Order: sequence, then C-alpha cells, then structure tokens
Amino acid sequence: MKVSLVAGGAGFVGANLIGHLAQAERSVVVIDNMSRGKEQFVSSAAVSAGRVIVIKADCSVQEEVAEAFAKASQLGDIDEVWHLAANSDIPAGVADSAVDLKDTFMTTHCLLKEMKQYQVKEIHFASSSAVYGDLGPVTLQEDIGPLLPISNYGAMKLASEALISAAAESFLFKANIFRFPNVVGVPATHGVILDFVNKLIGSPDQLVVLGDGTQQKAYLHVSDLVEAMLLIRARETKNKIELINIGPVDEGVTVRHIAETVVSRVSPGAKIVYGSGNKGWVGDVPKFSYSTLKLQGYGWAPKLGSAAAVRRAIDEVASQLGK
Amino acid sequence: MKVSLVAGGAGFVGANLIGHLAQAERSVVVIDNMSRGKEQFVSSAAVSAGRVIVIKADCSVQEEVAEAFAKASQLGDIDEVWHLAANSDIPAGVADSAVDLKDTFMTTHCLLKEMKQYQVKEIHFASSSAVYGDLGPVTLQEDIGPLLPISNYGAMKLASEALISAAAESFLFKANIFRFPNVVGVPATHGVILDFVNKLIGSPDQLVVLGDGTQQKAYLHVSDLVEAMLLIRARETKNKIELINIGPVDEGVTVRHIAETVVSRVSPGAKIVYGSGNKGWVGDVPKFSYSTLKLQGYGWAPKLGSAAAVRRAIDEVASQLGK
Repeated sequence: MKVSLVAGGAGFVGANLIGHLAQAERSVVVIDNMSRGKEQFVSSAAVSAGRVIVIKADCSVQEEVAEAFAKASQLGDIDEVWHLAANSDIPAGVADSAVDLKDTFMTTHCLLKEMKQYQVKEIHFASSSAVYGDLGPVTLQEDIGPLLPISNYGAMKLASEALISAAAESFLFKANIFRFPNVVGVPATHGVILDFVNKLIGSPDQLVVLGDGTQQKAYLHVSDLVEAMLLIRARETKNKIELINIGPVDEGVTVRHIAETVVSRVSPGAKIVYGSGNKGWVGDVPKFSYSTLKLQGYGWAPKLGSAAAVRRAIDEVASQLGK
Repeated sequence: MKVSLVAGGAGFVGANLIGHLAQAERSVVVIDNMSRGKEQFVSSAAVSAGRVIVIKADCSVQEEVAEAFAKASQLGDIDEVWHLAANSDIPAGVADSAVDLKDTFMTTHCLLKEMKQYQVKEIHFASSSAVYGDLGPVTLQEDIGPLLPISNYGAMKLASEALISAAAESFLFKANIFRFPNVVGVPATHGVILDFVNKLIGSPDQLVVLGDGTQQKAYLHVSDLVEAMLLIRARETKNKIELINIGPVDEGVTVRHIAETVVSRVSPGAKIVYGSGNKGWVGDVPKFSYSTLKLQGYGWAPKLGSAAAVRRAIDEVASQLGK
C-alpha cells in the first residue's frame, strides 16, 4: 500500500484534492491543525471506506509531525507529501511576522526534516504568486527575478521554495513547486468572496470594500487547480524541480466586478461603499499578469476563466453559507 | 549620538567593518554569539576609546536580541543595523537544516522584529551568491531567476532576503542587500584558505583537497568588500531595496591554484592529493560567473583581483597562524 501524506489537507484545496488521490492501492493521511480546515470538509465517503485518515496535528511542531509520519508509515510506504499547510490570512501575517514564520514556513521545515528521516522522495508544494512581489507591469514567468515579496506570507512561501530546492539537491528525487494564483470555490475558508458574502449576511444593506475596487486579479476555480496539479504530478520529467505557475489564461476581473456579482447574488440592491487607493492592504499586489505558458505547454487549459470561476464560486460560497 | 548595531560584528567581515563605522558622533554596538567571532577581533583601540561596545548575545534568540537593543538604545539613536550573523559552515548546514535555520535565518527574523519595535529604518544585510544556486553557465545578474539554492545556507540567505523585502514594504526605509562572493582575508574564521593552512600545519607533508581542483571561483579581499558596502551605504537612492552583487571583476582562480600557493607559502614541497569530481560537497557550486556591472556602475572597482586577493589572504592567514 502506498500512502500520500497531505499536510493542511482538511483545508480548502486539500478537501478538493484528496478524493482524487485515494485509490485502491493508495491511502491518504491528512494532517491538519484544524485552524481553518475542518474534518467535515474531508469526504466522509472516503473516510468511511478507510482510504483517508485524518490526524489533527500542527505541522509547525516537529514532534507532532514526527508522530503523524509514524502513524502514516504503519499504513504503508509514504511515497509523497503534499504540502498545503499555510497561514491564509495575509494581513495578519504582515502585522505579526511570527504568523507566517510558524504556519507558512516552519511547516515546510518540519515536513522536510521528517521526509528526510522517512526517505520520502517526492513533494508537491503549494507556493504562491506572492513570491513575485510587485514587479510592475511585467509578465510573471517562472524564471523571472528579482524575487522581492512584499508580504511576510510571500516571503515565507519563497523561503519554503528555497528550502525545498536545497532538499532536492540533497535527498529529494522530485519537487513540484506550484505557484498558485488566487483560487476560488468551496469549502471556502478565506478570501474576498467569503469575506463579501459574510459581510452582506451581517449587514444586508451595504458592502464596504477595501480599496477603490479597481484592483484586478486573475482567479482560478479550485477544480481547475486540482486538475493542473494532478497533471503535473503524473508527468515524467528529468528535472528534479518543477517550478510552475498555475493560473487562468485571462487578465482577471476587478474587485468591483466581484462586489457587484456578490451583491446581486446575495443581497440585491445593497449599496457598495469603496475605499481609496488600489491596494487593499500591505502585501496586496494591485494588478499583475501571470504567465501560464509553461503549463499550457503541457496541454492544460482551465475549464473556467476568471469571470466564470468567480461567478461559480460566488454561487457555491453563498450556498455554503445557506444563502 | 547615533548608534550602528552590528550583528555578527565580531566575525571576519564585522571585524574589518566596524573601525570604519565608529566616528565622533557614532557608536558601534557589536552583538555576537562568539561561535566563530572573537572579542579580540574587534579593534581594541576603538573599544578603549568607548566607541565600540561588544555584547555577547545570540541573535537567533529574541530575548537576547531585545536585551541588546535595549542596551544599545541607551547610548543613542539606533539608526542602522548591519546583519552579518550567519552560520558559515555550509556542509554542516546541509547535514542538519536546523543549523542554517537558526544561525542564518532566525537571526534575520529576530533582528527585524526588534528593528520594527525600535523603529530602526535601515538595514545592511550580508546575503550571498549562494542564493543563485547552480544556474549553469549564465551570467549571474541581480535580477536573474529562478532562485533555486542548492544548500540550506543559500536557502536561508534567500529566505532572509525575502523577509527583509517584506519588511521594506511594511516599515523599513532602506534595505541594502549585499550578495557576497567568496571573501578572503583575516581574521579568518572559515573558508578554503584557512582550511588548507590548518591542514598543512597539522601534516606538513601533504595536502588533501576535496574535489579534483578544477573548481574555479572568484574571490574578493575583505578590504575591497568593506569599501563596496560603505560606498553603497553612502549613496542616496530612491529604491527602498538595493539588491547588489559584490565581487571581483575577473573569472576567478581554481582550487588547484589556491592549493599550490598555500603549499609554496606554508610548506614548500608538500604533496597535493586531489579527490574526484568538481564539486567539493553538496551545495558547492563548481563555477559561476558573477556580474558586478551594477556595482561598477556606481564607480567601484576592486583594488585586488581574485589572484591577488588570494595571494594576500594566504600571507595574512599564514601570519595569523604563526607561519
């Protein structure tokens, strides 16, 4: 029996991924501190079929990771680790660098240490477009530099990439480093759509938006993200490190567009109140164009563009919250 | 009174720097855990003139850094931090990632946290060419990517750059990130020259060299390095982050050349025994060409090329060890 270990697997992306990993000859062990993740996000069908086991543990605490690896290795041969554990509250990480240090970076350090111990040779890592910082109006390809992230979140994702890169020189056989775009869908645990829907449920008459609404970003639906990751995982390549942007192929949609769509779905007629400036918070990159040419070269294309992904996610998140 | 705080200031580079910082209106506070640094490396003239204070503290322990900042701030206004603290034993860091995590990265995290607390707005950081990893035969300019370091040392230097970059977006006014080349000179605490001289003192008849001796690297003398850093510090620029390679302008010298020069200086006639391969250890980049065009554009040129720097350093290190 092969075992996939998924750190942060009870969160938004993990919940969408693990159903695809569990198979006849493969068990999935989810490790999650349940800060945002929830056990019920993990498919109950897969759990009751005995193919998925959920362990509550903090991936930034070495002893807890060691214990989880010990349990997982009793099920079979751990041959891959998916590292999806991270802080997802970027402003909180800007206010206190200890947040991303612990949840975004030390998770990586602890997981790699245990992988070395258990001779697990393959890692799939959820990095982020935040590693690019704010390079202005250039196209963000995987090999661009300099990398000067503007949030502690981005910094600790880059730090994690760097540590994985060193591990690939030393003991890993394969490291897929996925640079995620903004991802939408359910079960939503954070992000602009959940935020707007929650705000409107709290006060149905108006929606206060950070910034002037002109921020434009590309969004990918989580179903397309998962498909891309599985495609990359299945590819045979010579490169030990596959560094790859995952994202939509369009220029994205504005915050104004999202706000208006959420209002019309959740609370039609609510007034939208905009702030000023085109940055929502320190660490927020107003607009960037993200190259996914490399991934497209592998034959991948998203089923949903940014606008369609956002529309579908708004529907899903509203339903998740009973609207 | 202004105060310069120099983390790792009792080490090799710090010992050469602090004499240039201490002035009539400026005190220097050295913080060093004395793992490689030594109090006697710090100019006794400067110490007895009351311009330099040495505090033994571990920069990777927040409480100790906080205490050192508190003491330093009693002398005056801390307006800059030089961050030279790091592990300097790259192979040790490859064997155990905890080494560079603590000494190369957590030092950065702790210093930045205290800088934010004390509103210190300027940092000068000793980064490294190791952040580039092994990109093959390309010219390493500051904006090249991808950054895939091959040692935990390089990874934790890149992680430190990333954290400083995020801090520059949040609270710093100025961050000079110096990417150091191989630096030679005295007081030597580590490095190939010290290693060779020590080996020959231990067994004067032969010198065993890791690798086949064809590894070629560029070396800068520490006197040129210090001059470059002071030049960059004195420049007025609009950029908050100055990311800059410091290094010689030549292609460097081979390990064989260094071995032969050390032998002829320290133990003429000793046999040199080479290993195989052109990598000395995991994390060792065999050959790279390092662009210093940006720095040259500021009017800087090294007084010594690689060969002259190595020759002078061998003399200095041999004298330091009584040969």
